[in-house]
Amino acid sequence: MREVCVVGVGMSEWGEVWKTSMRDLYVHAAMAAIKNSGVDHIDSMYVGCMSGGLFVGQEHLGALMADYLGVTGIPAVRVESACASGGFAFRQAFIEVASGMSDIVLASGVEKMTDCSPDEDTNALATAADAEYEVFHGATFPGLYAMMACAHMAKYGTTREMLSAVAVKNHKNGAKNPVAQYPFTVTSDQVASSVMVADPLRILDCSPITDGAAAVIVTTVDIARKLGKPYVKVKGSAAGTDTIALAQRADITTIKSATIAAQKALAMAGKKIDDIQFAEMHDCFTIAEIILAESIGKYKPGQAGPETLAGETSLEGKFPINSSGGLKSKGHPVGATGIAQIVEVYKQLTGQAESGRQIPKSPKIGMAQNMGGSGASSVVHILEVA
Amino acid sequence: MREVCVVGVGMSEWGEVWKTSMRDLYVHAAMAAIKNSGVDHIDSMYVGCMSGGLFVGQEHLGALMADYLGVTGIPAVRVESACASGGFAFRQAFIEVASGMSDIVLASGVEKMTDCSPDEDTNALATAADAEYEVFHGATFPGLYAMMACAHMAKYGTTREMLSAVAVKNHKNGAKNPVAQYPFTVTSDQVASSVMVADPLRILDCSPITDGAAAVIVTTVDIARKLGKPYVKVKGSAAGTDTIALAQRADITTIKSATIAAQKALAMAGKKIDDIQFAEMHDCFTIAEIILAESIGKYKPGQAGPETLAGETSLEGKFPINSSGGLKSKGHPVGATGIAQIVEVYKQLTGQAESGRQIPKSPKIGMAQNMGGSGASSVVHILEVA
Repeated sequence: MREVCVVGVGMSEWGEVWKTSMRDLYVHAAMAAIKNSGVDHIDSMYVGCMSGGLFVGQEHLGALMADYLGVTGIPAVRVESACASGGFAFRQAFIEVASGMSDIVLASGVEKMTDCSPDEDTNALATAADAEYEVFHGATFPGLYAMMACAHMAKYGTTREMLSAVAVKNHKNGAKNPVAQYPFTVTSDQVASSVMVADPLRILDCSPITDGAAAVIVTTVDIARKLGKPYVKVKGSAAGTDTIALAQRADITTIKSATIAAQKALAMAGKKIDDIQFAEMHDCFTIAEIILAESIGKYKPGQAGPETLAGETSLEGKFPINSSGGLKSKGHPVGATGIAQIVEVYKQLTGQAESGRQIPKSPKIGMAQNMGGSGASSVVHILEVA
Repeated sequence: MREVCVVGVGMSEWGEVWKTSMRDLYVHAAMAAIKNSGVDHIDSMYVGCMSGGLFVGQEHLGALMADYLGVTGIPAVRVESACASGGFAFRQAFIEVASGMSDIVLASGVEKMTDCSPDEDTNALATAADAEYEVFHGATFPGLYAMMACAHMAKYGTTREMLSAVAVKNHKNGAKNPVAQYPFTVTSDQVASSVMVADPLRILDCSPITDGAAAVIVTTVDIARKLGKPYVKVKGSAAGTDTIALAQRADITTIKSATIAAQKALAMAGKKIDDIQFAEMHDCFTIAEIILAESIGKYKPGQAGPETLAGETSLEGKFPINSSGGLKSKGHPVGATGIAQIVEVYKQLTGQAESGRQIPKSPKIGMAQNMGGSGASSVVHILEVA
């Protein structure tokens, strides 16, 4: 397998972008990545999207986006793994370049979620869970994560304050991110007194509904060098799965798919978890970030909450998590999220994080962890300064 | 890149399978392929599916199917390119094995289309076209292909009899296929007098709505040899795209994405079109097979109709097309179709086509051509006896 790197990144506007269509959002992000990288063409492209069908009545997004990007002719295909669609799209681009099949591949993700009603959004998102054994019986994603939160609190003594600390930290980071949907700070008290969604999760424990797109250019080290732009190497790429229904898991206080993906990615990169200096993680709910920081092996079970409360995962802490603001503050256009994580890791590694968001210690190795549904799929990438 | 081969194949029941769920159909096909190949594990899997969201309210099909197949843990992801989803899933499996990332990959496809109403089916299928510029204005797939048929008839003199000859031939082949949804013969008169759908296309010009799944095992030549089962090499894999809306194409009597994919796949395989001895092609409508046989370069524009009428594409002809019965008689569960084409090419190359369907000249090289929508995406594979 050839060595693979990321050489340019781009994002569209993120938020409730009512006046821009899905295809235009996509083209904005893709063109930004192409311009940022300096490539004069792309050989192939992957589009991560969870549900173009249910959100906007449009499937066949690979061909559609190639058309609207003005590159018809090249291979273009959509990749879907619920909220991990972007991370899997990046992984396919990585494999294609590593294989030698293509030299320059556009890895991208998009979701347009505000063109339908909140009810339709809830139903569309629920299709990431087990339709027959969870959704038909009334389960929604806040409900599933609320059960995971209750179990984690009961088993490890995780508290309301620890959950709130995740939101406070991520909003503090997101306030420094020009594309964040909610670029404002929140206090622990505001989180704890925000409206209840599914006990114990309140509205400020939840990531929002977002329109947005993100894109990165994946290529060989040789090509990246010739372009003369900052690039980072992709040292590890791995994916894992678990049962789709929570009821079939032995333990819902951990996410096994993330453990598998992190261990495999670390092994591929020849690294230990303590070599990783920062991470973008899938904080679709505050409890998710806590469980994931434990599942990837960074903290022992029950320790991620206290570490977050102690500031260890803040921008200045020992292991910054979600310097971008995470899904919580930056927003969560589900198919784009995994790509946006790569964008942030690239920016941090190349010293390009805007507005005071740069991690002070100038990290050399970072991780992106993207998850589908309640953890039935996870994908982990490890990137390193070349 | 490593040499890649197909070593085992499987299919579920195809048709209006009301008593079997999508996940069960999938597991039937995947288990059949695993058993047929003799592998004792799989490293990774791809699931081709066009719209789990719209047809059955279920996305996240990679993880779901890994779960129900009993292989949770391994990477599993869905690939979508409308009706070419299966072909693209096979291509991703090919690239993954070629890259060295995995040794044994399950390439599969599934669609459950009869759990919703005919109206919902029509709407779901329409999401393969351009929602904003075609579907919102009333276009459906029979309508789009009817326009292509009218243009082809006007430009080249293609006749009603030629369209009918495609249906007659494919039903004759499908009548010998144990999994075919419509395993009966039809006459030219029956096709020509069947109910009109979108002038000039009649109901017997159209492929049906189908539930079904298909799966194949993709691996290295070394592993295939050790398994001691018949295997065929994948010599060429290529994909192409075109504008998604028909109105933006210079010429709707040809399908450019198929031309691009066929030329690239032939170049990769080091073959010329006349080296290919038979093909499975995407006959979603009778006119599609005629246009595609020209687009891949087998016949000159306007010649595929007369050649079909003359029997050249029959089982005993010079270039058999759709020995399986094609989408027309075998059925068209959209996400599974591209994989089922690989199943048929594998069976023909290894002399395992059932019930008198074997091509008499024992071909050594075959092609599978799978298409999305009205041709915005195409994927072509060339397989050869090892």
